[in-house]
Amino acid sequence: MKLTTDKKILIVGLGLLGGSYARALVKKGYYVTAITRSRSSIDYALSENIIVKGASFVDPALVGEADLVVLALYPHVLIDWIRENQHLFKPGTVITDVTGVKGMIVDKIQTMLRTDVEFIAAHPMAGREVYGVQNSSDAIFKGANYVVTPSEKNTEDAIELCRDLGETLGFARVSSLSPKKHDQIIGFVSQLTHCIAMTLMTCQKEENLQDYTGDSFRDLTRIARMNDEMWSELFLLNKDALLHQMTLFEGELNRLRCLLETDDVEGLRDMMRYSTERRALFDKKAN
Amino acid sequence: MKLTTDKKILIVGLGLLGGSYARALVKKGYYVTAITRSRSSIDYALSENIIVKGASFVDPALVGEADLVVLALYPHVLIDWIRENQHLFKPGTVITDVTGVKGMIVDKIQTMLRTDVEFIAAHPMAGREVYGVQNSSDAIFKGANYVVTPSEKNTEDAIELCRDLGETLGFARVSSLSPKKHDQIIGFVSQLTHCIAMTLMTCQKEENLQDYTGDSFRDLTRIARMNDEMWSELFLLNKDALLHQMTLFEGELNRLRCLLETDDVEGLRDMMRYSTERRALFDKKAN
Repeated sequence: MKLTTDKKILIVGLGLLGGSYARALVKKGYYVTAITRSRSSIDYALSENIIVKGASFVDPALVGEADLVVLALYPHVLIDWIRENQHLFKPGTVITDVTGVKGMIVDKIQTMLRTDVEFIAAHPMAGREVYGVQNSSDAIFKGANYVVTPSEKNTEDAIELCRDLGETLGFARVSSLSPKKHDQIIGFVSQLTHCIAMTLMTCQKEENLQDYTGDSFRDLTRIARMNDEMWSELFLLNKDALLHQMTLFEGELNRLRCLLETDDVEGLRDMMRYSTERRALFDKKAN
Repeated sequence: MKLTTDKKILIVGLGLLGGSYARALVKKGYYVTAITRSRSSIDYALSENIIVKGASFVDPALVGEADLVVLALYPHVLIDWIRENQHLFKPGTVITDVTGVKGMIVDKIQTMLRTDVEFIAAHPMAGREVYGVQNSSDAIFKGANYVVTPSEKNTEDAIELCRDLGETLGFARVSSLSPKKHDQIIGFVSQLTHCIAMTLMTCQKEENLQDYTGDSFRDLTRIARMNDEMWSELFLLNKDALLHQMTLFEGELNRLRCLLETDDVEGLRDMMRYSTERRALFDKKAN
């Protein structure tokens, strides 16, 4: 099933990511509506013409007319929202999300969901350290990755629709992973990196360190500005995978420590060359 | 002693950093010459008018006319260069460097140097992952830090001249640290961050990881492209300080691990809030 422009799209939770979805979809000619708690976010989105209708409460009319619902909510809010409002979906509605962990969520939602609608999870790997629809921009999808995480309960139709959404939004690469594999990888590329950034930021009480700082330290700690509510939740939802990745990292750091302690110049240079070679794979692709 | 435009400045080692010095100084009206091994680098610099004279060998005339010599060389090359060529300096010449570690170097050089010239060390905290004079640009100094590392052997005159060089180059902030304190701080903000980036890059053999990567991982591994000759040398020259910083980081990472293992949401959120607050200090200052 392709995402054609006759589909009505409802975004629930109009923050940075929800707002960026709205902007990208409206540009492509879609009918986009939104539900979010803050009235001023709705007013802003209406004034920017990135939604055609909106409500700061769960408006049954908006939910009932939607063919595709994007839930851009925190994990625990997401599950409650579906539990409380799933009776409002029209039959055949496809529901997707933007959550950064999948294992716990996909299973919980698919187990409790009505059987005449379908939940297909996705993780748009884009974001910034600022919040709110006022800071939203579809430019954040450029060069970024979008991962669909189907379970064995999903249909080919819904998977295709969800992949198509990722392409329509302008992501550089759309791929699929099982929820479990997704969480392992995210435990590494996203969660472990945030753990490292916050650890770097807090392990030293040295005063005036900022006067002696180069770009390396700034780069490694850009993401040390964290939404503590969201990240503590994401970490704990993916605790086992994250702890495993931490162990792998600590083991390799210890290998590096041994190379240093034994003055093993060739070992150090080998590791640096391997690092350099491998890093080349990760350059952002142009769209 | 101010760095006035009647001073003749010789740059030895015309790579990315040396070339960027030349560009910045020529813009401000200085007489700049260069000595570097590669003839094509000299030719390029002459054609770009960023030096007035240059040689691909140690030309006694160029060394002998210089009031200020900037040695932009690898640590071990730097010390050999001074040992072999110090007889060519004219009396009163001030010599500075760009090396990323100071303890070992400052002492070695000041001990062997002629008493009628002076070595004052400095660390321009600017760079890129590309090499050579062809990639040089004085824009790399914008918003960056420059640290002078005087020892008790340095005169006020030379220290002032060296600070003035940093300001003339366009650094946002010029400060002073003892060589020892510098090495401690650099062990943290620069060397430990490189260790972390290369460890992140090499601890996972997962295939196609790049398809599932967000900006966080890209940011934390930008510096994982390393000049293995230079960095292995810098790490080992500062081994004790670096190992100490590694221990601090590992201890804090272990604290985070314990918070996760015990589901300590409040502890996690406290650490994230402290990280967020502290990170605000490190935003790049506009010049």
